[in-house]
Amino acid sequence: MRFDFVLDQRLAAETVPVTHWPLCVVLLQDDARYPWLILVPQRAGLSEIHDLAGADRMQLALEQDLASRALKQESGAEKMNVAALGNVVPQLHVHVIARRQGDEAWPGPVWGRGARVPYAPGARDRLMMRLRGALEGALR
Amino acid sequence: MRFDFVLDQRLAAETVPVTHWPLCVVLLQDDARYPWLILVPQRAGLSEIHDLAGADRMQLALEQDLASRALKQESGAEKMNVAALGNVVPQLHVHVIARRQGDEAWPGPVWGRGARVPYAPGARDRLMMRLRGALEGALR
Repeated sequence: MRFDFVLDQRLAAETVPVTHWPLCVVLLQDDARYPWLILVPQRAGLSEIHDLAGADRMQLALEQDLASRALKQESGAEKMNVAALGNVVPQLHVHVIARRQGDEAWPGPVWGRGARVPYAPGARDRLMMRLRGALEGALR
Repeated sequence: MRFDFVLDQRLAAETVPVTHWPLCVVLLQDDARYPWLILVPQRAGLSEIHDLAGADRMQLALEQDLASRALKQESGAEKMNVAALGNVVPQLHVHVIARRQGDEAWPGPVWGRGARVPYAPGARDRLMMRLRGALEGALR
């Protein structure tokens, strides 16, 4: 981790860490409505994907795809939503969200829709460990 | 363009074409509320970014960033929203949207929010031509 990178407190408050990849810290959003990862490039002061330097940009694409593929497989979801918005939290971060027909927001986007439903602590930690295994296996 | 690629009719119906890049056709969403490009990789049968083959994946990252940078500059927007959702139209496509504090959906996402406001024909075509110049210049 770069010494000048500090995870935004709003991202930290609603997530648990899953793993650290070469570029990104990978977080599990604590919302039982949707299997939902957030990738945060460990680079200070960036808010747009297009601000990443070339090698980091390629690494983000790689890590984003590994996360998307792993979360789709683990969740059995029909569709992945991958998005960098940052209208509320400007620190560059990428949402990777598993969507199912009939989930609370389907077919709309998940952001700003209803209230977050935290996992039961045991369920959250079991999912986090399962995803950690899948993600760490994916990068090997 | 590959012969087996056909642009989804729902994407075509609400957009005008801006340019063709090596991988993507670039469309301008006909919605005066937000400067909004849609990049559609000219590959048949894909619905997830992580399904793109390696070289195409890198090209998408390049084209997405060129579009994002150009639209940010042309629009003077504060924040770009870049997203592949596809819950409604499964053909793989990437939204690149210029957001401003105070726009209709700010700070929420734009999808499924209010009704599209088509440009006046002259305004739409002037913007399309300006963006075409910026995008074709960016790839050179």
